[in-house]
Amino acid sequence: MSKKIRRIAISTGGGDAPGLNAVIRSVVISAIYRGWECYGIRDGFNGILGSHRYPDGIIPLTRDRVRGIAHLGGTILGTTNKGNPLKYPTRLADGTMAETDRSDEIIAYFQRHRLDALVSVGGDGSLAIANVLHKKGLPVVCVPKTIDNDLDKTVTTFGFDTAVEFATEAIDRLHTTAESHQRIMVVEVMGRYAGWIALHSGIAGGAHSILIPEIPFDIDKVAAKVRSREDFGRTYSIVVAAEGAMPVGGKREILKTATAGQEERLGGIGEQVARSLQERTGKDARVVVLGHLLRGGSPTSFDRLAALRFGAAAVRALESETFGVMVALAHPNVEYVALEEVAGRMKGVPLDSDIVQTGRDIGIAFGD
Amino acid sequence: MSKKIRRIAISTGGGDAPGLNAVIRSVVISAIYRGWECYGIRDGFNGILGSHRYPDGIIPLTRDRVRGIAHLGGTILGTTNKGNPLKYPTRLADGTMAETDRSDEIIAYFQRHRLDALVSVGGDGSLAIANVLHKKGLPVVCVPKTIDNDLDKTVTTFGFDTAVEFATEAIDRLHTTAESHQRIMVVEVMGRYAGWIALHSGIAGGAHSILIPEIPFDIDKVAAKVRSREDFGRTYSIVVAAEGAMPVGGKREILKTATAGQEERLGGIGEQVARSLQERTGKDARVVVLGHLLRGGSPTSFDRLAALRFGAAAVRALESETFGVMVALAHPNVEYVALEEVAGRMKGVPLDSDIVQTGRDIGIAFGD
Amino acid sequence: MSKKIRRIAISTGGGDAPGLNAVIRSVVISAIYRGWECYGIRDGFNGILGSHRYPDGIIPLTRDRVRGIAHLGGTILGTTNKGNPLKYPTRLADGTMAETDRSDEIIAYFQRHRLDALVSVGGDGSLAIANVLHKKGLPVVCVPKTIDNDLDKTVTTFGFDTAVEFATEAIDRLHTTAESHQRIMVVEVMGRYAGWIALHSGIAGGAHSILIPEIPFDIDKVAAKVRSREDFGRTYSIVVAAEGAMPVGGKREILKTATAGQEERLGGIGEQVARSLQERTGKDARVVVLGHLLRGGSPTSFDRLAALRFGAAAVRALESETFGVMVALAHPNVEYVALEEVAGRMKGVPLDSDIVQTGRDIGIAFGD
Amino acid sequence: MSKKIRRIAISTGGGDAPGLNAVIRSVVISAIYRGWECYGIRDGFNGILGSHRYPDGIIPLTRDRVRGIAHLGGTILGTTNKGNPLKYPTRLADGTMAETDRSDEIIAYFQRHRLDALVSVGGDGSLAIANVLHKKGLPVVCVPKTIDNDLDKTVTTFGFDTAVEFATEAIDRLHTTAESHQRIMVVEVMGRYAGWIALHSGIAGGAHSILIPEIPFDIDKVAAKVRSREDFGRTYSIVVAAEGAMPVGGKREILKTATAGQEERLGGIGEQVARSLQERTGKDARVVVLGHLLRGGSPTSFDRLAALRFGAAAVRALESETFGVMVALAHPNVEYVALEEVAGRMKGVPLDSDIVQTGRDIGIAFGD
Repeated sequence: MSKKIRRIAISTGGGDAPGLNAVIRSVVISAIYRGWECYGIRDGFNGILGSHRYPDGIIPLTRDRVRGIAHLGGTILGTTNKGNPLKYPTRLADGTMAETDRSDEIIAYFQRHRLDALVSVGGDGSLAIANVLHKKGLPVVCVPKTIDNDLDKTVTTFGFDTAVEFATEAIDRLHTTAESHQRIMVVEVMGRYAGWIALHSGIAGGAHSILIPEIPFDIDKVAAKVRSREDFGRTYSIVVAAEGAMPVGGKREILKTATAGQEERLGGIGEQVARSLQERTGKDARVVVLGHLLRGGSPTSFDRLAALRFGAAAVRALESETFGVMVALAHPNVEYVALEEVAGRMKGVPLDSDIVQTGRDIGIAFGD
Repeated sequence: MSKKIRRIAISTGGGDAPGLNAVIRSVVISAIYRGWECYGIRDGFNGILGSHRYPDGIIPLTRDRVRGIAHLGGTILGTTNKGNPLKYPTRLADGTMAETDRSDEIIAYFQRHRLDALVSVGGDGSLAIANVLHKKGLPVVCVPKTIDNDLDKTVTTFGFDTAVEFATEAIDRLHTTAESHQRIMVVEVMGRYAGWIALHSGIAGGAHSILIPEIPFDIDKVAAKVRSREDFGRTYSIVVAAEGAMPVGGKREILKTATAGQEERLGGIGEQVARSLQERTGKDARVVVLGHLLRGGSPTSFDRLAALRFGAAAVRALESETFGVMVALAHPNVEYVALEEVAGRMKGVPLDSDIVQTGRDIGIAFGD
Repeated sequence: MSKKIRRIAISTGGGDAPGLNAVIRSVVISAIYRGWECYGIRDGFNGILGSHRYPDGIIPLTRDRVRGIAHLGGTILGTTNKGNPLKYPTRLADGTMAETDRSDEIIAYFQRHRLDALVSVGGDGSLAIANVLHKKGLPVVCVPKTIDNDLDKTVTTFGFDTAVEFATEAIDRLHTTAESHQRIMVVEVMGRYAGWIALHSGIAGGAHSILIPEIPFDIDKVAAKVRSREDFGRTYSIVVAAEGAMPVGGKREILKTATAGQEERLGGIGEQVARSLQERTGKDARVVVLGHLLRGGSPTSFDRLAALRFGAAAVRALESETFGVMVALAHPNVEYVALEEVAGRMKGVPLDSDIVQTGRDIGIAFGD
Repeated sequence: MSKKIRRIAISTGGGDAPGLNAVIRSVVISAIYRGWECYGIRDGFNGILGSHRYPDGIIPLTRDRVRGIAHLGGTILGTTNKGNPLKYPTRLADGTMAETDRSDEIIAYFQRHRLDALVSVGGDGSLAIANVLHKKGLPVVCVPKTIDNDLDKTVTTFGFDTAVEFATEAIDRLHTTAESHQRIMVVEVMGRYAGWIALHSGIAGGAHSILIPEIPFDIDKVAAKVRSREDFGRTYSIVVAAEGAMPVGGKREILKTATAGQEERLGGIGEQVARSLQERTGKDARVVVLGHLLRGGSPTSFDRLAALRFGAAAVRALESETFGVMVALAHPNVEYVALEEVAGRMKGVPLDSDIVQTGRDIGIAFGD
């Protein structure tokens, strides 16, 4: 169909997510099936912009190279949070640092090495970069990536199901130990802006309270839930908190000053909630931070399938010259959404979601 | 809101499915939350129609009774394939057996024991029964149940994800042993009428051929796939076959005469495919039948959440007097579909599904 | 054989451990099989000494009560760290608190309620109590319980394998995310006095450094290991640290002042190691504390079998009037060890263990 | 210490087992750590004796080649049941086939390519071959491999724990579906000569009857167990049968005539037991054959650790010139056993094992 496309490149940007390798495998096999060549850019776009010498930063992706990787966590290409190409940290002549837009270099690199198109796998940041590259004329198709499930215009994406499954398993484990020791156990999960992981795993895992950014919580109401369980002879409680959960009417002190790294050290929301509940209820309260454990591991079958579908759909989009789009899941189909429509949009938990309502119906407190 | 509903009953019919207990828990807690009483009918409708003496066939479902069951497989109420109330096997006066419509007895039972409404959890058969009961004036809400994912009008339901996850894990395991022994391994999974489990697990698990009822297969093409892999030095092959997969242009001999039980004994499609491939390729071929293993086990977090949402949504439907409906998943929402619209409809894999296309793009043979 | 034993009691003391319910089930069924009655003491010995009114603190354990519990985490009897019967916190007449030896009350309780013998499941503390009760004439058999595997005179006990399995899975997950982000990931696991969990899971999970109490570590050598990996192009490192790991030549500051609860809040050894490695290597370092997650969950098949064997062996010991012993695993057999021999003994990792040597052989640094 | 050893080879023979790759990794890293070179012989000894052209049949094993393989099932070297070097199928000049002892060729190959020693990983057959090679002067150390756990002189070896864990999980799954449908479910597991897998998984999984080769069974007693459960209102039963289980006083008809492949097709012991129980009890009975599923998959942490210990211990044996031995597990240590002592010895379940007694104590029927 398309005359143009013969050589494509793929990059994986932002954080790790289970399913990245399945996307890569699917893109590569689908491309080879069409007679194309496929290359992988290492470490987000740093394989092009960073210290890698050509051709170290870009590797040929053959059938053999992507064999047996669909069920492996991580990404064979590496990923990185540093070095957004639109704001690349650069040392100026006077020694100070500045942020530079290096998107033109990427375009030039593609032209110089006769790469016809890009499949960009990533989150919000990668979508923005892809949109710029697309506007500058590079044929681009995006595959959405977010553990947190906070990207709009797709029902879900790969990685989220794996994270929820692991978080649910962790909550399962904590039930018996919390009950045996008659404790409050606070489980902090990922979700800085959206509470999807906390909501899904909290309901599936039988948590008693769920705290999410979308519903500011009153700690006294959470404590009241603990006490009302005591009245029924339930001497323990499980609280699941998204890392971005917030008390009513105020920011958490901690967020004002700390960087992400420092915040983790100083104690996140889970720590604070545990301390507050212990004070209010007199019960022993402990916190478990699942954090990094949620990013790794072998993807669930759901995530593997989603990732493989997305990868194949991205190649079909390139073939049919459907550029500047993001692949999206609209059960039972995949569809394409213009990058313009998704860039910068965040998908929080709607307050009228039947999932929240399910939580309320089965007695889970949201602290509101 | 509703004045009428004070006491409801729940039944689970047809085969076992992971998530049934989560539905039960959700219905019970949601109902108690509204001040209702909740009862469980044992063994499908046999708790009413069978040999149980009143009140043995119907048990009060309290908070304590449904505690900690959401993650357990099976159903605390029991289930049964025998004794469809519309065609109940009955011994006549002359000693011969006949099928009787006993739906009026169910209606009478509900009236006699002042049960105001029914939540019926089940598959195709249960939906048909529920529709009859609804037309006879009983307030009914259905929750769809099918491991095979072959019920129409809902994207999916609980149980399917768990089955696919286990099947995928099994396929993963067989890769290494098939490769070590340079064998063909045929994995037979459930799916008499629809190939969803085979399709999802086959793609997620990296099968090389997938045989489903919707795509009649040519065994020579499956054998050709095995041989073409040999040409690339891949000395093993994994074939996933739905139990209802069919060769092109003909029924399987075996299906003409055998009952379900006998068929299993005589050898299902997996057995036949393995034998045929061994003859055609000269390679050692083995079959693994996952069958019953797919029905059991603890539900995945996805299935638990779906089941809990369905249970709560069923109670909300009763509360708002939305009777004669099936709860359905229409991501990201649950919705209600009239029983009229779903009864007797089967959802096969659409041949233009992007999932099938994904399979083709990544080199999986469907035998067509 | 024994004329005396007709009614026995079982208690589970100390922390939670996967397999406790399997022990209970095995004791109960084995006892009933011999025509005995079986009772469960709730919350360690607090069912007798605490606020429970008779008979609330002791529950009849029937076949039905222990049905289907062997694979469940936790303990249906509850457990507790508070209220060691030998040093029970008691309020004196003048309002001050003192520690009282209440073992005589337990003896009296058994006599009053015609309980002939005790199966005591627990760790170091429970063994000491059992030994006192045994010396006062109560027929006692102990079942060892320790997640940490630090009880002497038994190769292992239930719970440890489950903890190691989960820790290994967690380390597996962290590999991909650590590699993708080129980080140091420090995993803190249980083991205040012995490094078994860290050693087994660290080797099985492919950690690069393992820090255990038995081998004081030099943080500079751990940092050197990180750097030497960098030299080979391995840009990430996994460090597994037992909570009781110690730097060479000194106690950790924190341990001087903090209680267990405070220590957790202030930051354990994992936190400190991560911070030190980040300073020394310039690499981003994060910590994951597995703590409570290791105690819960369904026991592995190994732990279930060990627990069932121990429970049955305890009843056989009572039947043959082998009192005052602990059941022990001496592959392939179980055997009985006099309580005198085990009380107060701790089993650390021997420095000449082939497991440590295996770690060194495959390049793992112990920081020494 | 040793002057001689500079280049070693490793082979993996017989069937697949989870942990083979961990052994390989451990041998390779331990050898490189000592400055040795390491080579892998492909497909058992067929890399030397088969159709591979030199050097295709033997591959250099570097650090990179064995990176990240410890948790993968299968073996990167391949394995094979065909072509025992002591009885190698050979076409004679007249066209007929004969069995030839080709061990001298292996010795010559090692000399020609200056390979100083062999680490042979395998079961009974491999031990016999290794013993012959050892007697002919080749420095050999063996690592025992058997899923079935039927090798003598070692408490256990890698692979067995993984198989038991999976079988137990399968039995867990079947409980709920058997109960829901009020069926007899027969689970056939590996174990042609020894019933270890059936015994361990059957007890851990809560089976109601366990049939093993060591205890000939009376099918009427198994049926009686099913009926006695019915009397207690337990309307389902789980029977676990080792593939080598035998009825009292006679061989199974089927074994007289069928080859292994045919037997599988005709129906193994599980099939026969299910049919017999259905006839005798009138209950619906189904069979699940786990077979190949038990060989594959990622090894448990126990098996990974055992495999890594064995690999490192094998290299240490070579270093200290301890030749002609098998590495063995003697908790808590590994030790070395002379090949003479192990060759041809099989380890069945001792009838006085406390594990069998545990089964009896908790009400499991063995059919005797």
